[in-house]
Amino acid sequence: MSGINIKTAGESHGQALVGIVEGIPSNLPLCPEDINKDLQRRQMGYGRGGRMAIETDKAEILTGLRWGKTLGGPIAVMIKNKDWANWEKGMSVSSEDEGAIAAVTRPRPGHADLAGAAKYNFKDIRNILERASARETTTRVALGAICKKFLSEFGVVIGSFVTSIGNVRSRELLSLSDSGILIELFNKAEDFKGDTVTVRTPSEYESEQMMCAVGLAAKDGDTLGGTFIVFATNIPVGLGSHTQWDRKLDGRLAQAIMSIQAVKGVEIGMGFHASTLNGSQVMDEIYYNRPKTGQFGFYRKTNNMGGIEGGMSNGMPIVLSAAMKPIPTLRKKPLKSVDLTSKEPIEAAYERSDVCAVPSCAVIGEAMAAAVLADAFLEKFGGDSIDETRANYHNYMNYLSEI
Amino acid sequence: MSGINIKTAGESHGQALVGIVEGIPSNLPLCPEDINKDLQRRQMGYGRGGRMAIETDKAEILTGLRWGKTLGGPIAVMIKNKDWANWEKGMSVSSEDEGAIAAVTRPRPGHADLAGAAKYNFKDIRNILERASARETTTRVALGAICKKFLSEFGVVIGSFVTSIGNVRSRELLSLSDSGILIELFNKAEDFKGDTVTVRTPSEYESEQMMCAVGLAAKDGDTLGGTFIVFATNIPVGLGSHTQWDRKLDGRLAQAIMSIQAVKGVEIGMGFHASTLNGSQVMDEIYYNRPKTGQFGFYRKTNNMGGIEGGMSNGMPIVLSAAMKPIPTLRKKPLKSVDLTSKEPIEAAYERSDVCAVPSCAVIGEAMAAAVLADAFLEKFGGDSIDETRANYHNYMNYLSEI
Amino acid sequence: MSGINIKTAGESHGQALVGIVEGIPSNLPLCPEDINKDLQRRQMGYGRGGRMAIETDKAEILTGLRWGKTLGGPIAVMIKNKDWANWEKGMSVSSEDEGAIAAVTRPRPGHADLAGAAKYNFKDIRNILERASARETTTRVALGAICKKFLSEFGVVIGSFVTSIGNVRSRELLSLSDSGILIELFNKAEDFKGDTVTVRTPSEYESEQMMCAVGLAAKDGDTLGGTFIVFATNIPVGLGSHTQWDRKLDGRLAQAIMSIQAVKGVEIGMGFHASTLNGSQVMDEIYYNRPKTGQFGFYRKTNNMGGIEGGMSNGMPIVLSAAMKPIPTLRKKPLKSVDLTSKEPIEAAYERSDVCAVPSCAVIGEAMAAAVLADAFLEKFGGDSIDETRANYHNYMNYLSEI
Amino acid sequence: MSGINIKTAGESHGQALVGIVEGIPSNLPLCPEDINKDLQRRQMGYGRGGRMAIETDKAEILTGLRWGKTLGGPIAVMIKNKDWANWEKGMSVSSEDEGAIAAVTRPRPGHADLAGAAKYNFKDIRNILERASARETTTRVALGAICKKFLSEFGVVIGSFVTSIGNVRSRELLSLSDSGILIELFNKAEDFKGDTVTVRTPSEYESEQMMCAVGLAAKDGDTLGGTFIVFATNIPVGLGSHTQWDRKLDGRLAQAIMSIQAVKGVEIGMGFHASTLNGSQVMDEIYYNRPKTGQFGFYRKTNNMGGIEGGMSNGMPIVLSAAMKPIPTLRKKPLKSVDLTSKEPIEAAYERSDVCAVPSCAVIGEAMAAAVLADAFLEKFGGDSIDETRANYHNYMNYLSEI
Repeated sequence: MSGINIKTAGESHGQALVGIVEGIPSNLPLCPEDINKDLQRRQMGYGRGGRMAIETDKAEILTGLRWGKTLGGPIAVMIKNKDWANWEKGMSVSSEDEGAIAAVTRPRPGHADLAGAAKYNFKDIRNILERASARETTTRVALGAICKKFLSEFGVVIGSFVTSIGNVRSRELLSLSDSGILIELFNKAEDFKGDTVTVRTPSEYESEQMMCAVGLAAKDGDTLGGTFIVFATNIPVGLGSHTQWDRKLDGRLAQAIMSIQAVKGVEIGMGFHASTLNGSQVMDEIYYNRPKTGQFGFYRKTNNMGGIEGGMSNGMPIVLSAAMKPIPTLRKKPLKSVDLTSKEPIEAAYERSDVCAVPSCAVIGEAMAAAVLADAFLEKFGGDSIDETRANYHNYMNYLSEI
Repeated sequence: MSGINIKTAGESHGQALVGIVEGIPSNLPLCPEDINKDLQRRQMGYGRGGRMAIETDKAEILTGLRWGKTLGGPIAVMIKNKDWANWEKGMSVSSEDEGAIAAVTRPRPGHADLAGAAKYNFKDIRNILERASARETTTRVALGAICKKFLSEFGVVIGSFVTSIGNVRSRELLSLSDSGILIELFNKAEDFKGDTVTVRTPSEYESEQMMCAVGLAAKDGDTLGGTFIVFATNIPVGLGSHTQWDRKLDGRLAQAIMSIQAVKGVEIGMGFHASTLNGSQVMDEIYYNRPKTGQFGFYRKTNNMGGIEGGMSNGMPIVLSAAMKPIPTLRKKPLKSVDLTSKEPIEAAYERSDVCAVPSCAVIGEAMAAAVLADAFLEKFGGDSIDETRANYHNYMNYLSEI
Repeated sequence: MSGINIKTAGESHGQALVGIVEGIPSNLPLCPEDINKDLQRRQMGYGRGGRMAIETDKAEILTGLRWGKTLGGPIAVMIKNKDWANWEKGMSVSSEDEGAIAAVTRPRPGHADLAGAAKYNFKDIRNILERASARETTTRVALGAICKKFLSEFGVVIGSFVTSIGNVRSRELLSLSDSGILIELFNKAEDFKGDTVTVRTPSEYESEQMMCAVGLAAKDGDTLGGTFIVFATNIPVGLGSHTQWDRKLDGRLAQAIMSIQAVKGVEIGMGFHASTLNGSQVMDEIYYNRPKTGQFGFYRKTNNMGGIEGGMSNGMPIVLSAAMKPIPTLRKKPLKSVDLTSKEPIEAAYERSDVCAVPSCAVIGEAMAAAVLADAFLEKFGGDSIDETRANYHNYMNYLSEI
Repeated sequence: MSGINIKTAGESHGQALVGIVEGIPSNLPLCPEDINKDLQRRQMGYGRGGRMAIETDKAEILTGLRWGKTLGGPIAVMIKNKDWANWEKGMSVSSEDEGAIAAVTRPRPGHADLAGAAKYNFKDIRNILERASARETTTRVALGAICKKFLSEFGVVIGSFVTSIGNVRSRELLSLSDSGILIELFNKAEDFKGDTVTVRTPSEYESEQMMCAVGLAAKDGDTLGGTFIVFATNIPVGLGSHTQWDRKLDGRLAQAIMSIQAVKGVEIGMGFHASTLNGSQVMDEIYYNRPKTGQFGFYRKTNNMGGIEGGMSNGMPIVLSAAMKPIPTLRKKPLKSVDLTSKEPIEAAYERSDVCAVPSCAVIGEAMAAAVLADAFLEKFGGDSIDETRANYHNYMNYLSEI
């Protein structure tokens, strides 16, 4: 029961979202702004629906922090739903409000609706969709931002950018072995347009193509998915372990990313493409430069393995890709479904939704990667205060420069 | 600390591999043959190296079983290394044998060698590679076979087949919504050639192409990776849960598959391809037929989601894809590396190895999927004896036919 | 990651206490009053300090509940601190308020103060004592009340009563084998005095003796500990398991109870007394009556084992005892300590505190026992909705009546 | 999934006992003798039955060790049952041997027999008693010895001694604040008699009284329980944490000890006795001496809290007490029971058993305490090799001497 773990709670239209992250060392500087900037990044993105306007999410840190520094105990955050006034009866916890709004009985293909209603024995699908909604990821982003802040103390940068939307795909991304370039791509994806509503892809030309694709889908009442990269720089060699299946860093990252709503695929480094090449083409050969104190002398010129070999970080940037399916809630092209009660064929319910949420999903991917990496980091370095963890970290980095 | 969990132990050339699976209900019929047939399937496969001849693995069940039935407690299996006589000194546990064989100091790119030696502070890379070796998956297969046996009591079939080797790719696989077809493809992949050394792909024509590709790579001293599908039929709707990130079935499966040595990508259902299509093209629409007792009336005609929506099984077959990178140990084209001790550039060490292990990897994928699904199954249905679990299962199936 | 687990967050004088319980099946009726009545019971008790008047705790259920029934997802509760206005600067999360109140530098023996400050690298002990305070148990009681509500669906009653305060000890408690008598003692302890401020012991005479002892200690500026019993009736045979050390019900209960602030000893059934007797004197012999449907025919006339044999419930009431040390914060007799900063000998800090909190501690014990038992219950019976769990439970109970 | 965890497998008369410990850092020197000396200590003890002669347990280390040093991966041990030849059919894993020996149908009060048979649906109680037997603790002792070896690198000594057998109780044990005295008592308990069959209590006089009590019980065909102390010296301040109930060191130790077969009570430090005293009498006041480098300047003159405050180690020796009930298998005074099949009243089965196993139980207590403390140690200090953990440990100890 050690390490960093995160738990979220809350329904999409409930009173508030709540989350707890445990295990962050003490004396880490932290402020709501550290969290809110990622909440905002999650909400932006070309293709998000109207709800984003309603919900300018702000996290309140309720516990675990005093005078701007962590206390070493669980940090609880709460994000109030701005729209709560409209849902107070419909999502009330009180039995007196039972029936205040009509039941949802038309399950939407591609959502948790049908499986959830069957599993949990509900006639009103709202009881499922409220928790299954990607709104839940707001809390993940909040908790992940705290994990990022912890990792940033060690120079770790976690970022993301969109690599495709629908069938518009970034041209080959090279040099994923270079932290500087990764960070530059990330910065471009973040800042490119001068305002914040972008598709979060590095190239201006492709960005426009992607926005165009989103616009067309919106016009058709259709939706689009896409792919994105999440990376982490400055991860020291040796996080995770080859010694047991559930200690491997790649597996833990894959779970974290695949657990995001609508993600259907995860890759480390070259991923599926590596399966098509010969062994002599994909390995990251090993080189050495006499290191400065606190550095690791061995390095690679390529990073096809995405920074992980044998279930451990190898000192190169961690690079993950993920595929998000298109959002299954279609405005104009309702999918065929069956009414839960009447068993009659019907059209699936339409809940207000986005056309494309890939730019947001990438931000959520950062949060999940941060949670896994922070856990693996603490597992290796131990420490209860940020100073102790740092001293242990430097112990190891100094040892690395001497092997 | 409930549910099913698996732990493996052992080095590639150690005395024995050991594994423990916990949580299997009592009174499940089980015999060594249930395990050994999967150990054999793992060892077969066109492209495996010479070691496979040495090691005809046989599992001994040491605990947890009596008179052919499980006792409800931990089941320990041991697989002795047939080659142990040649390694008794080199891999001895005794300090008296220190130095009996020369240290490995040339880290192989693509392996745990360098990261592991740095992390664990070893000068002799053998101390890492022995545990990091895919030999470890023998134990996973043994424990996974026990999980499969448990699931088979509920009509679950878990199978796999190879979908590409190198750049030879199966033509589009359709109808992954149909259990019968999945099982047929599996059977073809298993039996096709009349002998057991095949690439485990369903089509004879493609099988020959793939073997040809393996042959060419072998001649070049090169290696090949590939992709494979793992599926599970008859999984009831409602395993896993949408309620928390670490309860989602897709995430748990992704971790289990990505944790396999050399796997660099995992997909559920359509996976990455789904990210390129419109929402109206990929969703599995919902239909209904009045069910017989014990069946679920809602069904799909497609299975693009791979049997999982909202982190829960949806009653369709579970279908996963994974990408295996080519094996990084190259016989004729040694990769550039750096000697751990001298820091001089060298060629990477060559340990006897396979040219292509994709057919084996698919069998390992089955084992890992089985472990996750058995855990999720027991989580939903509870029960300490197979009869109790079965009664609870039927409770639920009968309830499903009445909603 | 299945089963029921509870997490708490929050500082004693922070803005709010927060807790999350995961894994409660859907469709369980629940209302704030189910929680608040236990929060009130925790706050009452002869010997509590002035703070209790300030804090009439009320739980808000923020998530996981709709229209009076659980949704199957995580349930988050928040208990606001009524006294927050007085602490807004002193316990602010904002770095702007740094230094708003003076640092606590005098560690109190018997508290987390010194060990916590050393471990977490704090100069201001408030950063430790705020989380280490027994105020945290408010959240445990809230979450435990939800677990109790779940168990009550199966006729389980969890109660407690005080068995000693200081050196005033209840005379021998007999017949702990009889659920009816346990519940009667519990009811007496709850209701005895006509008002709620009692020591929660069943006998009126002893109650007066105990209150007298508390009064004397208060006059002396001293404190008292004591012992209490927590019991659970109607627990079916077979919760927990003998098969692995961390699945044993007795161990899990012992952890839960020992983790309560100030508890220094835990017993199951006869506990330490059993160690003084002969084997022929302490075993609970086995009898049989042809059972009605849904009952277990085997029974005992004694319950020296406290309802647990071999790490499993045996069908008798679960009976635990625990020892609470006296509260270490002494008003008039300050303990010797050393200033953290000056290293000079000083008297320990006095934070407003109780004279005796044993009656409260017993209520907390109920909550922790409920959390463990609910987890073990769900582990055996599975189920995602209360109806499914109930059906599985009846499956088993009917099977029991037929063996 | 980090930290140290232990799993055992195996039946009392099965082919072998198997155990796995995960998470021990690399490069720890280890040899079978480190384990075997504790296996022998577990088997000795006045009052053990005839079986001890048959089974001179020897552990084979099958994995995780090479040339006398740990590899950082899982360490599997196997202890073969010497008596296996006599049980090969009766405990065979093969269904062909079904019925080779008669079923046990008479449940023994005080054992897992009845609860286990009901839970796991067995008619033959042997299917329960084989795993529930205290024989299982052999594996715990083996794995615990590895944890002890790890802790010994940091000067930690874990020992135990018996404090009562039946109603013969050691006179008041003073000065449990002094590591030197604890170790001296331990050494006396170990070595006292000149041969190894003792009751493992420090005083010669009391030792004779206790042996006399055991002899009388044996003559009567009765059994005796008792109490023992387990201690750990040189545990640095700050293991465990006050921040969450399941991170508290006292709770984790209590679970580990209470999970031992026949243990019914656990205390930390003064335990139940503390509940009878005033606050001013029990607290361990705080003193300070300018420390040498690497030491903690704050200390106590008493250790009533048993080295744990606020769920954390406080720098004093950890001192636990536990109560073992008398063994419930009575040779001459069979307990009343009911035949599982006929439902007729009968006498409980007699399996060859001990008269008193308290001296062994204390050794098992050491093993369980070692597992918990090693886990908490690694949680604080991290590190993958013993050198890295040691460097981090010294970081912290040096920091401690400067606060």
